[in-house]
Amino acid sequence: MISRNLAKYIKSLQIKKYRKETQSFFVEGAKNVIELINSEYEITHLCCTEEFLEQHKTEIKLQQINHFIAKEKDLVQIGTFKNNNAALAVAKITETPIKLDKKQLYLALDDVRDPGNMGTIIRIADWYGIKNIIASQTCADLYNPKVLNASMGSFIRVNVEYANLSEKLQGLDMPIYGALLEGANIHKKTLEPRGVILMGNESNGISQENLALVNSPITIPNFGGAESLNVAIATAVICDNFRRY
Amino acid sequence: MISRNLAKYIKSLQIKKYRKETQSFFVEGAKNVIELINSEYEITHLCCTEEFLEQHKTEIKLQQINHFIAKEKDLVQIGTFKNNNAALAVAKITETPIKLDKKQLYLALDDVRDPGNMGTIIRIADWYGIKNIIASQTCADLYNPKVLNASMGSFIRVNVEYANLSEKLQGLDMPIYGALLEGANIHKKTLEPRGVILMGNESNGISQENLALVNSPITIPNFGGAESLNVAIATAVICDNFRRY
Repeated sequence: MISRNLAKYIKSLQIKKYRKETQSFFVEGAKNVIELINSEYEITHLCCTEEFLEQHKTEIKLQQINHFIAKEKDLVQIGTFKNNNAALAVAKITETPIKLDKKQLYLALDDVRDPGNMGTIIRIADWYGIKNIIASQTCADLYNPKVLNASMGSFIRVNVEYANLSEKLQGLDMPIYGALLEGANIHKKTLEPRGVILMGNESNGISQENLALVNSPITIPNFGGAESLNVAIATAVICDNFRRY
Repeated sequence: MISRNLAKYIKSLQIKKYRKETQSFFVEGAKNVIELINSEYEITHLCCTEEFLEQHKTEIKLQQINHFIAKEKDLVQIGTFKNNNAALAVAKITETPIKLDKKQLYLALDDVRDPGNMGTIIRIADWYGIKNIIASQTCADLYNPKVLNASMGSFIRVNVEYANLSEKLQGLDMPIYGALLEGANIHKKTLEPRGVILMGNESNGISQENLALVNSPITIPNFGGAESLNVAIATAVICDNFRRY
């Protein structure tokens, strides 16, 4: 049974301020919750149906997860999903600062505000084996339920650090590729999978301040009439080109 | 001034049934409306602010467009945008059947239901110079306002034909590439930009029936932990690989 206080607490975690205060967040749905259980995240509360508990009782008992039986309608009421016949889990936020290594490939996001784009980019990073993303403080919050859902569980495998990009990236001895409308054609340029790929805001691109960080401007060639590509789409195409090396 | 009847008519066009009956649709916002004015679409009604009319009066008068002055709040009330300080235009639906040509590259969509994905794929096709899309009858409707908005004006340059895919694509003497989880690695395969790229449904991929059409299965290589990519993301990456040829 979920108490009124617990329901209220979980609902409050939809708001960034309360997630910060409590250093907690939640995920919903069978796939996300199972991935969370099998991850290193510390789960403080698992709300789930009898069926879900039955199916996963070995892991849940082994890890001594604090669990509460809930009906489908309770899960819908405390979460953001329209349907959820499985589970919702609350876990502690973790933040691991990124130590930049010249041999690795990173993504840096400058003011990516849309939670759907943010989550999709995390999923793309995961697909292309990019384990670390540096996000400006103005990017959508990783633990926003919309970001987590769009990431399709990839947030577990990709580390996101929120930082001041110019402080974090200045003076590095590594390539910083910036996705611009006028840069080197990524089909023609040799792209070694090392360095930082910097992607900009949905409407305004990379800010003036962060443009100064870019030492290797790159562009996706355009073969038709569209003026631009969505930032998540452009990120995927660029990552794909880096992984052809 | 927009009469109550006109307002009611425009609002009804948010529903597919009424778009079919009247063979009409609307677009919103300065960018989309300007692109529509400069296209071959026949505009039946233009609702716009005094400022918009003033800025574009040459085109509007030259083309003798039937126009109605509206306030920002009227445009918001009849449309789907939260803000619209420019214009909304109603135009006649056009449908041009696609004549498949062996030398061209096409996209075929099997049951792409999400309007955001549908619109984004149209924008991607436009970027990569793919002028024709064959969509199964169950795909999101091109003239759904969410599809049009996600296409960012690209619907004007890309022709979409709704058809039974197996009837349209069967027995063709051209490659039909299907995006599958187990196909040829697109980084290794030579992809000539000719033929049809078939993309499947968001959850279920290509249907059994249409799988039979595929004579060249292809796959985006996976370098990390994500199980899949969103269909619009996968479409962009595949198109990009075809355009490297």
